Amino acid sequence: MTDQALKVDEAELRGLLDGRWARVRERARDLLRGEEFAPVSGLSVEDHRARVLTQLKALAGTEVPGFGFPESVGGSDDIGASVVAFEMLVCDMSLMVKVGVQWGLFGGAIRALGTEPHHAEYLPGVMSVDLPGCFAMTETGHGSDVQHLRTTAVYDPATEEFVVHTPDESARKDYIGNAARDGRMAVVFAQLSADGAEHGVHALMVPVRDAEGRPMPGVRIEDCGTKAGLNGVDNGRLWFDQVRVPRTNLLNRYGDVAADGTYTSPIENKNRRFFTMLGTLIRGRISVAGGAGTATKAALAIAVRYADTRRQFTRPSADGRPEQEVRILDYLAHQRKLLPALARTYGLHFAQEELVARLHELYAAQERGERDEHAQRELESRAAGLKAIATWHATDTIQTCREACGGAGYLAENRIPQLKADSDIFTTFEGDNTVLLQQLTKGLLTNFQEHFGDLDQLGLVKFMAGRFVEAVIERTAATPLIERLVAAAPGRGTETSLYNRGWQLELLEDREQHVIEGLAGRLRRARKDGSDAFDVFNQAQDHVLTAGRAHMDRVVLEAFVAGIDRCGDQSTTKLLNRLCDLYVLSVVEEDRAWFLEHERLSTSRAKAVTQAVNDLCRGLRPYAVTLADAFGLRDEWLGAPIALGAEHARQGDGAAVSTG
Amino acid sequence: MTDQALKVDEAELRGLLDGRWARVRERARDLLRGEEFAPVSGLSVEDHRARVLTQLKALAGTEVPGFGFPESVGGSDDIGASVVAFEMLVCDMSLMVKVGVQWGLFGGAIRALGTEPHHAEYLPGVMSVDLPGCFAMTETGHGSDVQHLRTTAVYDPATEEFVVHTPDESARKDYIGNAARDGRMAVVFAQLSADGAEHGVHALMVPVRDAEGRPMPGVRIEDCGTKAGLNGVDNGRLWFDQVRVPRTNLLNRYGDVAADGTYTSPIENKNRRFFTMLGTLIRGRISVAGGAGTATKAALAIAVRYADTRRQFTRPSADGRPEQEVRILDYLAHQRKLLPALARTYGLHFAQEELVARLHELYAAQERGERDEHAQRELESRAAGLKAIATWHATDTIQTCREACGGAGYLAENRIPQLKADSDIFTTFEGDNTVLLQQLTKGLLTNFQEHFGDLDQLGLVKFMAGRFVEAVIERTAATPLIERLVAAAPGRGTETSLYNRGWQLELLEDREQHVIEGLAGRLRRARKDGSDAFDVFNQAQDHVLTAGRAHMDRVVLEAFVAGIDRCGDQSTTKLLNRLCDLYVLSVVEEDRAWFLEHERLSTSRAKAVTQAVNDLCRGLRPYAVTLADAFGLRDEWLGAPIALGAEHARQGDGAAVSTG
Repeated sequence: MTDQALKVDEAELRGLLDGRWARVRERARDLLRGEEFAPVSGLSVEDHRARVLTQLKALAGTEVPGFGFPESVGGSDDIGASVVAFEMLVCDMSLMVKVGVQWGLFGGAIRALGTEPHHAEYLPGVMSVDLPGCFAMTETGHGSDVQHLRTTAVYDPATEEFVVHTPDESARKDYIGNAARDGRMAVVFAQLSADGAEHGVHALMVPVRDAEGRPMPGVRIEDCGTKAGLNGVDNGRLWFDQVRVPRTNLLNRYGDVAADGTYTSPIENKNRRFFTMLGTLIRGRISVAGGAGTATKAALAIAVRYADTRRQFTRPSADGRPEQEVRILDYLAHQRKLLPALARTYGLHFAQEELVARLHELYAAQERGERDEHAQRELESRAAGLKAIATWHATDTIQTCREACGGAGYLAENRIPQLKADSDIFTTFEGDNTVLLQQLTKGLLTNFQEHFGDLDQLGLVKFMAGRFVEAVIERTAATPLIERLVAAAPGRGTETSLYNRGWQLELLEDREQHVIEGLAGRLRRARKDGSDAFDVFNQAQDHVLTAGRAHMDRVVLEAFVAGIDRCGDQSTTKLLNRLCDLYVLSVVEEDRAWFLEHERLSTSRAKAVTQAVNDLCRGLRPYAVTLADAFGLRDEWLGAPIALGAEHARQGDGAAVSTG
Repeated sequence: MTDQALKVDEAELRGLLDGRWARVRERARDLLRGEEFAPVSGLSVEDHRARVLTQLKALAGTEVPGFGFPESVGGSDDIGASVVAFEMLVCDMSLMVKVGVQWGLFGGAIRALGTEPHHAEYLPGVMSVDLPGCFAMTETGHGSDVQHLRTTAVYDPATEEFVVHTPDESARKDYIGNAARDGRMAVVFAQLSADGAEHGVHALMVPVRDAEGRPMPGVRIEDCGTKAGLNGVDNGRLWFDQVRVPRTNLLNRYGDVAADGTYTSPIENKNRRFFTMLGTLIRGRISVAGGAGTATKAALAIAVRYADTRRQFTRPSADGRPEQEVRILDYLAHQRKLLPALARTYGLHFAQEELVARLHELYAAQERGERDEHAQRELESRAAGLKAIATWHATDTIQTCREACGGAGYLAENRIPQLKADSDIFTTFEGDNTVLLQQLTKGLLTNFQEHFGDLDQLGLVKFMAGRFVEAVIERTAATPLIERLVAAAPGRGTETSLYNRGWQLELLEDREQHVIEGLAGRLRRARKDGSDAFDVFNQAQDHVLTAGRAHMDRVVLEAFVAGIDRCGDQSTTKLLNRLCDLYVLSVVEEDRAWFLEHERLSTSRAKAVTQAVNDLCRGLRPYAVTLADAFGLRDEWLGAPIALGAEHARQGDGAAVSTG
């Protein structure tokens, strides 16, 4: 790590980050301008809701809604673009979430779970927002555990209708976007009964308001009231009192009821059917990871620019230099707050890009009738993991940015409070992070068991060497490159440079393998003891979460490495490699207790990791503003005077923001 | 750690926590009732400000304001009570902060920095709120670095007036409570010039509004606008354009200007004078630590009660038990979120109690004319450290509680969003935490140097053994008890039980000593090299912050131990000892990388610490609700349906909240 100045190619860097859907990002930068889309604060809930609905309708007139819908109804069927467009809506995260509710969740469910007639009937109105709608899945009593929700839909062959009903208070639909004010129709998830049998959770189209906005007969609606943030989205509660809808309102792609009540499904197994249906909705989770990323980038852009201009405390004069106040980003403690977070944000960006591309490809393949169950499962696991770590990272980082901006960061005018409050729910909506991380690990354990389930401990160790990685630790990015790097790494225990990428990759891979192996062994041993399955799993829950995190750290590093490999400029590549070093070494530093406990690092090497993180912070500091600017968020989206020259101007030393 | 049930004496536990100022807590519970003081959400900024002012005036009619003021003006001169009363105002933290501004900062400054005539003239109006006022210290350009603020107060002997002036934009007073709406008068901190010389920062009484609420001539006032939270407090900005005030408006306890312009001060040294003046204002910082504590307790009380009743996912039936949904507090991951935080909250509570008592005693001694410089310095260091760790703990814990309550935790009706948003500023106001922690370490280093400064490295080590603890690691609580426990501990390296309190105390003490020694050595070596002093200190900044944290972990543990020692019931003592084990072992777990790197823990023992934390979580889970209820926060202050039986009632299995 030298302090030698690098000449960064800003256009190359921006282009690299913009990635495959660069045109969507550019279009968003072009569209989301002026007073109509500028961040505002201090609006009343009613005014905020009205403003966001107006913005949504303005977007309805563009190509944006079409990204997510088929050509048959005028869409462009570009799933990747729909996710990227969502994450660009950071000018007001209420708009982001409103778009997500209307076109992603509500429209997406009709698309994924419905069939051609539903598409033709509803999707044009969904896209134009003539039919604002709700995704009525979550209930008060069942949020994470969707399989056990309690709303019922019982088929009545006499009238060829379903009777949708809320049997008790825990079955009320809760936190439903578009419910409190704008929604006319809801995709209601309910336990389907037909012909005297229960068929599990299905979705039906249920009108909730008439054309004048009055609740439909039998439908009760309540406003969730003020929330921590996202108050431009009208979340509400829904109760159904024996509400009747025509048989054809069942979104019947994965399960249908004939006029006489006969139930049919292309998927025999009830459990598999349920998870297949949920799996089609994975885009929402991936979108949330992306949106969390943009919120993080916005907060970092504000905090980094401020820290680059804000000065506090005087540096004693030395070597004849005049006494001067120190820019706060020159303090190591401040660098440590912002720069490892910036590095991780880059890593997560590349991981998100990989994930969106994967979603896009699997979706296209499926449309061609090529469904790959294994790939779909891997996508769902990775989406769960990335959503969890990206949203936790957002929560942590935006909090840190608030503190890094001091009192200025507490003022609404500087945007960070709104980013914090709005993104706060991301860690628990579209799947509670703890539940998701556990789900990821369960997926990894399933892979593990499929390959090694029958081997005993000793056989396992012998057998493992070559096969573990391919079988369990699937690479998700740039496989040949990563394998070349790992192959070139010195063996475990060799004291190579901390900056050796192959060694870093192998270190994270080795941790993941060890944690999963250990967990699998622990669970198997306990099963043999005849212990209670729930207790065994519960007592290992911290181990389970560690496994999920270890997996994602490795996935993000691989994506980071693959991303850098796409960079066309040498000097910029060098900078990104330093940033990647900072990412991986701060991951190692954070968990160095594990590496010490498992003798993957010596005590002196662990201390050297801390020193390396400090060195990297100092070395990257001059590039911090450039790196944050490369996210390409428009100044007016940041909308924070402290990020837009106010601090510099106040100091009376020029109006432009320095770039370090 | 057995799972054997303990019979907890709830009154004993409550009494222990209520502590020395129990009557003040009881009085607050009695006063803060009904609609007038109930938490509300969704108010406009204007309505919220009006409500809080009304509440403040209601409190003005009670004995509360008098706690902080001398008997000469009708107060009761009970400093400890004033801090405890402040922290009880959790029903609306805007009220807490408004009280802090009016009686703590504004009134406190008049009291501490002014003399008898100022007390007589202003304090009655301060207490009655007939004279709402501002504490105008912070400037836009200088927040942490108060010594360099730029507002000027130049003495004009011709008219016997001071001319108060804002020379440039960076000198505007910013974030000033009571400025935007209610304040009539401000204590303005400015660089004092008289008789052609500069005398450093002093405070003057400057009227900012007339009786009709219009800004005074030469005073410009701006509203800071909406903030992340605390919107019931009217923060604003102040500019002074050559505003003249009489000579007697100088708060002249530590520096006075005679009619002819002659400056006199009881403290010759300008630097010492400045820090002495700031030191008298330490109560504000201590109050913030207390307020952060109450916010943490409120969030925990809500999240723990909810987790005790909320069920999610089904436990497979085993041993003939019926299938049932699991209470979320029965999951290890959920216990790990809430219970170590609960344990630390107890530790911080006891540390706060010690600190308030110390403040109270030193204050009384000083009033008797017995000023103890060393004790004052120790108080200031400890206040800085406790404020930093208590407010970070609040931020982390309230965030965790939000996530632990899922979507319900995002709704304003469940109170957590407001607690989060309101307390968020606590980490940076009344001193930025990073700056404070550094200040604490500098104090420790000063102690160190005073005792060991002249010894070389080798001499130091030899000399150290006996003297380090008494010289540098001053005990702050129950000294004889702690020393007995430490003396009884087995020597370093001996594998005693992880639950041995003496061993735990010694472990944290040993870490603190090692970190400070190492830091002192590092700084000294660099100084000998002739390196730039700023660079040397800056490159060690992470080490500096580690030292501060290590010190505070030990201080909190000692206070926890001392607190338990005051408990009169055996069974309750046993419970608190388990909780204390959880506190200290989770501190050790968090920093176990350090203990491994410095060979204080073997790898197997480090792993055992993690297992012990898991065991303690499981063992304490049945007592979680009792432990949270013992904080004695009224149900109506929590004001969260999810904490008050809604979840239980919804499940249809009874209306009362289970206590586990």
